[in-house]
Amino acid sequence: MADLVLTTFDWVPELPRGHVRDIRVRWALEEAGLPYRVETVPFGDRSAEHISHQPFGQVPWLVDGDISIFESGAILLHLGERSDALLPSDPRRRSEAKTWLFAALNSVEAASLPWSLFVFSGFSNDTPEWKRLDSFLTLRLQRMEPVLAGHEWLAGRFSIADILMADVLRLVDRFDGLTDYPACRAYVARATARPAFMKAHADQMAHFAAADSARQPG
Amino acid sequence: MADLVLTTFDWVPELPRGHVRDIRVRWALEEAGLPYRVETVPFGDRSAEHISHQPFGQVPWLVDGDISIFESGAILLHLGERSDALLPSDPRRRSEAKTWLFAALNSVEAASLPWSLFVFSGFSNDTPEWKRLDSFLTLRLQRMEPVLAGHEWLAGRFSIADILMADVLRLVDRFDGLTDYPACRAYVARATARPAFMKAHADQMAHFAAADSARQPG
Repeated sequence: MADLVLTTFDWVPELPRGHVRDIRVRWALEEAGLPYRVETVPFGDRSAEHISHQPFGQVPWLVDGDISIFESGAILLHLGERSDALLPSDPRRRSEAKTWLFAALNSVEAASLPWSLFVFSGFSNDTPEWKRLDSFLTLRLQRMEPVLAGHEWLAGRFSIADILMADVLRLVDRFDGLTDYPACRAYVARATARPAFMKAHADQMAHFAAADSARQPG
Repeated sequence: MADLVLTTFDWVPELPRGHVRDIRVRWALEEAGLPYRVETVPFGDRSAEHISHQPFGQVPWLVDGDISIFESGAILLHLGERSDALLPSDPRRRSEAKTWLFAALNSVEAASLPWSLFVFSGFSNDTPEWKRLDSFLTLRLQRMEPVLAGHEWLAGRFSIADILMADVLRLVDRFDGLTDYPACRAYVARATARPAFMKAHADQMAHFAAADSARQPG
């Protein structure tokens, strides 16, 4: 039996499918070739057991032996320390990969997350509030564009930093936020063309599709 | 000469003083008793040299020998791996500390940052946009409250996770966002009562005050 157990929701609505954050962990596990199995918690009811593993009532979390880890960044860092496929061994490159892992989350997703919340909420893009969040994201994308124009991957070769950065930018792209950033779009395209991403994405879609079938009577 | 060089701005306006993110690094360095010196870059002009160390044109970054690291989370993780004062050595506790380090940034600050942007911008708190961001932060604080009511520190003892979580919550508290969360407030109070925080805070305030004096003619 696999040591590694990834927990995600048993079901989610259509809109977030393909973007539930277990995909980051699935992608890393596929890149590393590490065997794992998937368990589920109810989407509709956050139990005490759920909260004990993920205090914010979200997913995913990963159990590795007697260690339970939440936060996609922390899980990817943990897996990076288990597999050379996910983190360079050269100390300087390794440090770069970890730095960009945090940058993907805390500089880029910190700006894209409130922006995407507003998109999801259907707010008008003609308010000072929208413009404030949009300009915050624009600042970050303007800085990422030359970085990604000059590098195939963020730390000299593919790493966990690229899994996070590409997944963060992929959501912005889905809402047409990358039209002015061709290098960012090309980066998302080359990251998501990797077999490990395609497998992870197909597996997440199949997981939730199976939940739909199970809900249908007769 | 110290191996470790922390770079921050030469000057910032009054409002962010005490909250510029170099304080997170100063705090960690003081907790660990690691010698360091401070260098500066112009606040008013982001040079190519600056961008080469910090691609988003922000501060801080830390140079340790031939490695240059940006992102406060990445810097604290690096320092945690250098000092037992900053990360527990027990594998399970160490993993918990790293997990909470990411949670402070990506679950709590991800919600508090757009909220504080709106506060800084002076936006009305009576719009659907404000309410969306406020409820996002509320969800996170409601989950942190029982965690911090039950634990002195996040990973069994003080660690880099507490430096980040306390610094994130400290800004929310400054804007009166913790009035309904007594355990969060008590946590901020006990973290900021630590001598290492007080030294770091005083040093940052003195650094920017000295810059004011240098700007005054005669």
